[in-house]
Amino acid sequence: MIKVTIYNEGVHEKTEKCVADVYPEGIHGQLKKVLSDEFEVSTYTLETVGEITEEVLKNTDVLIWWGHMAHQDVPDEVAARVRDAVHSGMGLVALHSAHHSKPFKLLMGTKCNLLWRCNDDFERVWKVKPAHPIAQGVGDFIYLEHEEVYGEPFGIPDPDEVVFISSYEGGEVFRSGCCYTRELGRIFYFQPGHESYPTYYNEEIIKVIKNAINWAYSPYRSDRGIDCRHVKIPTTVLEDVK
Amino acid sequence: MIKVTIYNEGVHEKTEKCVADVYPEGIHGQLKKVLSDEFEVSTYTLETVGEITEEVLKNTDVLIWWGHMAHQDVPDEVAARVRDAVHSGMGLVALHSAHHSKPFKLLMGTKCNLLWRCNDDFERVWKVKPAHPIAQGVGDFIYLEHEEVYGEPFGIPDPDEVVFISSYEGGEVFRSGCCYTRELGRIFYFQPGHESYPTYYNEEIIKVIKNAINWAYSPYRSDRGIDCRHVKIPTTVLEDVK
Amino acid sequence: MIKVTIYNEGVHEKTEKCVADVYPEGIHGQLKKVLSDEFEVSTYTLETVGEITEEVLKNTDVLIWWGHMAHQDVPDEVAARVRDAVHSGMGLVALHSAHHSKPFKLLMGTKCNLLWRCNDDFERVWKVKPAHPIAQGVGDFIYLEHEEVYGEPFGIPDPDEVVFISSYEGGEVFRSGCCYTRELGRIFYFQPGHESYPTYYNEEIIKVIKNAINWAYSPYRSDRGIDCRHVKIPTTVLEDVK
Amino acid sequence: MIKVTIYNEGVHEKTEKCVADVYPEGIHGQLKKVLSDEFEVSTYTLETVGEITEEVLKNTDVLIWWGHMAHQDVPDEVAARVRDAVHSGMGLVALHSAHHSKPFKLLMGTKCNLLWRCNDDFERVWKVKPAHPIAQGVGDFIYLEHEEVYGEPFGIPDPDEVVFISSYEGGEVFRSGCCYTRELGRIFYFQPGHESYPTYYNEEIIKVIKNAINWAYSPYRSDRGIDCRHVKIPTTVLEDVK
Repeated sequence: MIKVTIYNEGVHEKTEKCVADVYPEGIHGQLKKVLSDEFEVSTYTLETVGEITEEVLKNTDVLIWWGHMAHQDVPDEVAARVRDAVHSGMGLVALHSAHHSKPFKLLMGTKCNLLWRCNDDFERVWKVKPAHPIAQGVGDFIYLEHEEVYGEPFGIPDPDEVVFISSYEGGEVFRSGCCYTRELGRIFYFQPGHESYPTYYNEEIIKVIKNAINWAYSPYRSDRGIDCRHVKIPTTVLEDVK
Repeated sequence: MIKVTIYNEGVHEKTEKCVADVYPEGIHGQLKKVLSDEFEVSTYTLETVGEITEEVLKNTDVLIWWGHMAHQDVPDEVAARVRDAVHSGMGLVALHSAHHSKPFKLLMGTKCNLLWRCNDDFERVWKVKPAHPIAQGVGDFIYLEHEEVYGEPFGIPDPDEVVFISSYEGGEVFRSGCCYTRELGRIFYFQPGHESYPTYYNEEIIKVIKNAINWAYSPYRSDRGIDCRHVKIPTTVLEDVK
Repeated sequence: MIKVTIYNEGVHEKTEKCVADVYPEGIHGQLKKVLSDEFEVSTYTLETVGEITEEVLKNTDVLIWWGHMAHQDVPDEVAARVRDAVHSGMGLVALHSAHHSKPFKLLMGTKCNLLWRCNDDFERVWKVKPAHPIAQGVGDFIYLEHEEVYGEPFGIPDPDEVVFISSYEGGEVFRSGCCYTRELGRIFYFQPGHESYPTYYNEEIIKVIKNAINWAYSPYRSDRGIDCRHVKIPTTVLEDVK
Repeated sequence: MIKVTIYNEGVHEKTEKCVADVYPEGIHGQLKKVLSDEFEVSTYTLETVGEITEEVLKNTDVLIWWGHMAHQDVPDEVAARVRDAVHSGMGLVALHSAHHSKPFKLLMGTKCNLLWRCNDDFERVWKVKPAHPIAQGVGDFIYLEHEEVYGEPFGIPDPDEVVFISSYEGGEVFRSGCCYTRELGRIFYFQPGHESYPTYYNEEIIKVIKNAINWAYSPYRSDRGIDCRHVKIPTTVLEDVK
């Protein structure tokens, strides 16, 4: 069973009633509930973020990250640890405002800025690469009655593959489902999931997250990621390289 | 001066008054007018499409293609000729419904289908790769009061680079500015330009088309494109390969 | 069980003793033998190529194609049928000289030319995207004692992902493992497999082909591929689009 | 005239006679000499690296970076400054062992490790995307009599475009010419240029570097790169966004 670790900062749920109403057990609680039929799930929040040790990450196949208002409170060491674990082959699914989280920005090399707006717009998440395994089992688009608007230009590197592009009621567009590889690790960024909307109850959204976990999972890990190797003689001497 | 050849089928302009009103000299006439300050331009229509000979294409740096209702009337030989010229290094700018033109489909290897709708929607053409030379000199988005709606999924191969993504009033999204390379030739597909709207009078649209011509132009041509070469001895013998 | 159909022209094996010695049951026979533990396999050769009907392709999850000297003898209708089946979601694994086969060229939109040489060089197939599922379970490179040399420039479109790059004794390089998507179908081109060398007995090569079959397989098919759809009213009316 | 700033750490030239013999005026001196006919060039070394201020980078169109043994001596602030300048639209050409430099790694999000070996191998730098402007004006491959061997797997993100792939005498391969975009800035990594070989005297290598400068240059800069923007009402109100 693939081992999934969820980090959700879990602050909105405590400080805003409207969020607590939607996610009484926190976003991590809801995600855990819907993912547990298929994966072995454990969860962390801002309060326990320091417990996301190297050991925990070694035992994590795929890490899900949701954060928003408390990005700065995640210690730099934890962010670096997550980056290194991705390099070594751990999968990462970055949800919604995790585009601005420390580990994601470290892995992208950019500030990952965007345009945003929150007016209860509807969102349509359109499949643009329907052959991709992450797009399997959902319709031509996923309709979300209300979502936060994220708009281009989105300051990310060109993704390896763009699976979804979203439109919003007010006319913005956004590359909302993006695949990356960083050394041995695979990363999927997925835009939907504002804290005040019940996005993570939507069955198609859940299907996409499950697909993303399966896609990002790799049975092959190597502690040092892609390593630096000095070989002294030409690699025609096979033993030297393999 | 870069030599630009424009093919516009020119049928709508003759059969529909509303189109003739917008483009009294044809879409090719309007494009020629706005491009001639920077490029050496010649034009062809469906009536003269057979005159687009190998010789003409050899003397063309960048070919602009606009077609819609008469794709089938373009002879297969002309389509193959265009494909071969692209392989040999000629640039191609495919406009609007040219996504379904014979040469474009030959070069893509797919049917290039899409969703479409025509209800006078506004369109916003958003820059998603603002560092790209084709995106230079225009704002964050180009606003078009009325355009035909093209929607995803768009059955094209993954572009080398996506420069623009459009949104429409009704909520569709579309990869509206896409770069490709096919052997020695560069191709830019650009969505705006329905025959009944004055899109090719818009200064930012014209700027993009000019950028695309400059981007697609290559001073290096080779009649046979990327050629097949049989070398008999290892290429350590340099003369054999270079 | 994934249904794999193998096309191998099977001419070399009949006309050249040295090939028959390596592949007494044909390349298709050898591939069938090594793939049958994991997949349901059927085979065709040039003599039966006409039997690769639409029905056969509908019942094929992934098609493997090996051809060389008899590309021209494959009827155009069969090539078009294969292309259409890929568009509709069938996977395709194109092996070695299949780069010049009719269906592969139709799907690429280029001539797929390359430099080649046959002097018993060794080949090293290097992993350049080790996180990719097709690269799983093999070492940093696969060593082949003798292979035909294929060299750059290789006249293909930029792949969605490059998984392997090969080097040869004489100093050529070649993008030898390339992923593509064409509408709903996934394509993997893999260079090793000259008819006179026992490449398809190599366990790592077999592992890669198995990985490629699993990667190219999609449970979702749609007869018309990515379809053209005219919607009459804005897609805010959901029924109209879904 | 495009303003080029060269950073070369300049340590090898002072500590190793064999390097000083090849580059008596330093690698930066040699690069300055061959680039000055086309560009306005200024140079910095490790001794003056602190002088690479924000102001200097604002006045730099394209920065060339060569470093090797003193990566760690480049202050973190300078590395961050370079990263930020790239985000704002400055071009970056990273040469040879700059793959391990602080700014390059910050921009890539990976450790950029590789296999290496130094045995006076010859190198061939093969064009794999001959239509790319950086590949213009050089032959099918550039032959270098002696170069340091860099080998795959190379721990970089998938490039936007791969222009060159190299082979070496001993059989390694390496993606030696790679294009990236990070926010508004374009980056070209180019492998050749070990300190003890006269690579930067080779006319084809110089041609590639000049091409890369022209490609990476953008007349459009924006201090904050791709910015975060909060819009309060839907962007149908144009003034709000443009």
